[in-house]
Amino acid sequence: MSDDLKPTYTEKGKAFERDMDYIPDRILAGEHSADPDDATYGGRDPERDGIQVWPVEPGRYRLVAAPACPWANRSLIVRKLLGLEDVISVGLPGPTHDKRSWTFDRDPGGVDPVLGIERLQQAYFNRFPDYPKGITVPAMVDAESVAVVTNDFPWITHDFFFEWKDHHREGAPDLWPAAQREEMEEVMKRVFTEVNNGVYRCGFAGSQEAYEAAYERLWTAMDWLEERLATRRYLMGDAITEADVRLFTTLVRFDPVYHGHFKCNRNKLTEMPNLWGYARDLFQTPGFGETVDFEQIKAHYYVVHTDINPTGIIPAGPDPAVWETPHGRESLQG
Amino acid sequence: MSDDLKPTYTEKGKAFERDMDYIPDRILAGEHSADPDDATYGGRDPERDGIQVWPVEPGRYRLVAAPACPWANRSLIVRKLLGLEDVISVGLPGPTHDKRSWTFDRDPGGVDPVLGIERLQQAYFNRFPDYPKGITVPAMVDAESVAVVTNDFPWITHDFFFEWKDHHREGAPDLWPAAQREEMEEVMKRVFTEVNNGVYRCGFAGSQEAYEAAYERLWTAMDWLEERLATRRYLMGDAITEADVRLFTTLVRFDPVYHGHFKCNRNKLTEMPNLWGYARDLFQTPGFGETVDFEQIKAHYYVVHTDINPTGIIPAGPDPAVWETPHGRESLQG
Repeated sequence: MSDDLKPTYTEKGKAFERDMDYIPDRILAGEHSADPDDATYGGRDPERDGIQVWPVEPGRYRLVAAPACPWANRSLIVRKLLGLEDVISVGLPGPTHDKRSWTFDRDPGGVDPVLGIERLQQAYFNRFPDYPKGITVPAMVDAESVAVVTNDFPWITHDFFFEWKDHHREGAPDLWPAAQREEMEEVMKRVFTEVNNGVYRCGFAGSQEAYEAAYERLWTAMDWLEERLATRRYLMGDAITEADVRLFTTLVRFDPVYHGHFKCNRNKLTEMPNLWGYARDLFQTPGFGETVDFEQIKAHYYVVHTDINPTGIIPAGPDPAVWETPHGRESLQG
Repeated sequence: MSDDLKPTYTEKGKAFERDMDYIPDRILAGEHSADPDDATYGGRDPERDGIQVWPVEPGRYRLVAAPACPWANRSLIVRKLLGLEDVISVGLPGPTHDKRSWTFDRDPGGVDPVLGIERLQQAYFNRFPDYPKGITVPAMVDAESVAVVTNDFPWITHDFFFEWKDHHREGAPDLWPAAQREEMEEVMKRVFTEVNNGVYRCGFAGSQEAYEAAYERLWTAMDWLEERLATRRYLMGDAITEADVRLFTTLVRFDPVYHGHFKCNRNKLTEMPNLWGYARDLFQTPGFGETVDFEQIKAHYYVVHTDINPTGIIPAGPDPAVWETPHGRESLQG
């Protein structure tokens, strides 16, 4: 990759801040007014925030989700848990990308077989010819126009559950139990700011001070989770919810990547007994472990972040076989 | 530090090879002939190899040894184990250095109080005005001429034992038991090539292939040591020897540095039960733990190796308090 295509992730002297300004379109079932008080929009105003509504339509959309990426990994898990494989197809970019785009380098001829494009960037440009921001996964792409509908990852999995209900498999889990919704939103918020994003805040810190503050925040949250999971099999109790999906994709990357590459090295995940049992419990649940590709995960971080790993060498450890060991978490079931 | 003073440690496409060509002078007790068959010289020919002999003389030499450096750490431990503190003084450079030299930046005014120099390089140049190689620690420096005598680290600790015997403390350990000498040399050789140097071979690998080969070699040796220490309290059995000193200085750096920074991440040391018990046993033995400064160790590697950690950010973990936990190794004592 030529030097001007090498992205930088750390900014000297600066703390890391994630740009959360995504394409806010939604794929919704049935009729939805543009009323900002409609709970569907989660407090956003469709008009002010430029939210365009697309119809739920089996076979129309392609989920483009690199297995390497934790934000994309969420959508791959939820799609499987809900049994949406037959109505939403999947395109899988390879683990590395340059400043311009994720690519379909693992597909025959380097082209996504449904969208017919080499770089995800093309689907962004088909929608917004001068799209100025990063080309991110997951992205829901309209296969007819080969244009991105949305890359707003928390809403993508939210809508898989609430809007695609008619297409869920029989016995699909209730990932958003109404009775626990309020507490669950709080848990997910803390998991997002302190853990999902917290590991990046450590790894992309531009100063020793920013790093140390990030490390403190991360481990405060990890200790909170370790305690919470001492008495609960899953984050919200006896059943798997969206909150578990969101925590899992960070935990599964912890020892292979975040511990060393992002310097989150107070402990390995394997040294946190409850979190480690919990993470294995999920990994061994259909829909989770099968979406995890440790080789792609390691290749992504260690190759793409040239400003923190300029040699591009990918560590050989740790052995992923530990993920298949017994977790003993069944005893916590109420 | 300006860019032209930034050293590089990895060479693209290359495996790492340590330059073992040190200043071979020796500080010897009593009369020694220049006979190459004299066992003192370990098979080297004093004339051919340019070995100059200096006399043992209490108070004359200063051991310059950065606590951060594993090779220097050996000499600090052996000096304490043998009780040579009153006859060989110590100068302690700070943890970081540039391409030119280790510096006495932690001393008042940035000057070593005995040698009166700011940079160890000056003592090398006093001896060889155009000294062409790296300025390394440990170095034995003649305090009169402020000139380096030798930086040949395996011989420095060898001679502390064999040549300074008249000045050892009462009850000093027999670090080189004659009856085990042959086996001990074999063990030390394997520990040196596969472990002491093996971690550097991983960290400074210039290609993925070189790294993976280095990782395999390292862990083959670590597994051998893990097994060896299952039935022996120390490497050679019931008593501490020079072989233990040499292994210890790598083990104590393993989790804070080599695991992440050098990508030796199959396991943490804490995950190798025998090696971990053994390392703590030594750490808690007078002469070992007191020479270990984890802050300086981390600062050294993470700041100096700008080509593998360009941000210069030093990880906050892991917590060194684990080194004080009970090791239970007394039960192996024969």
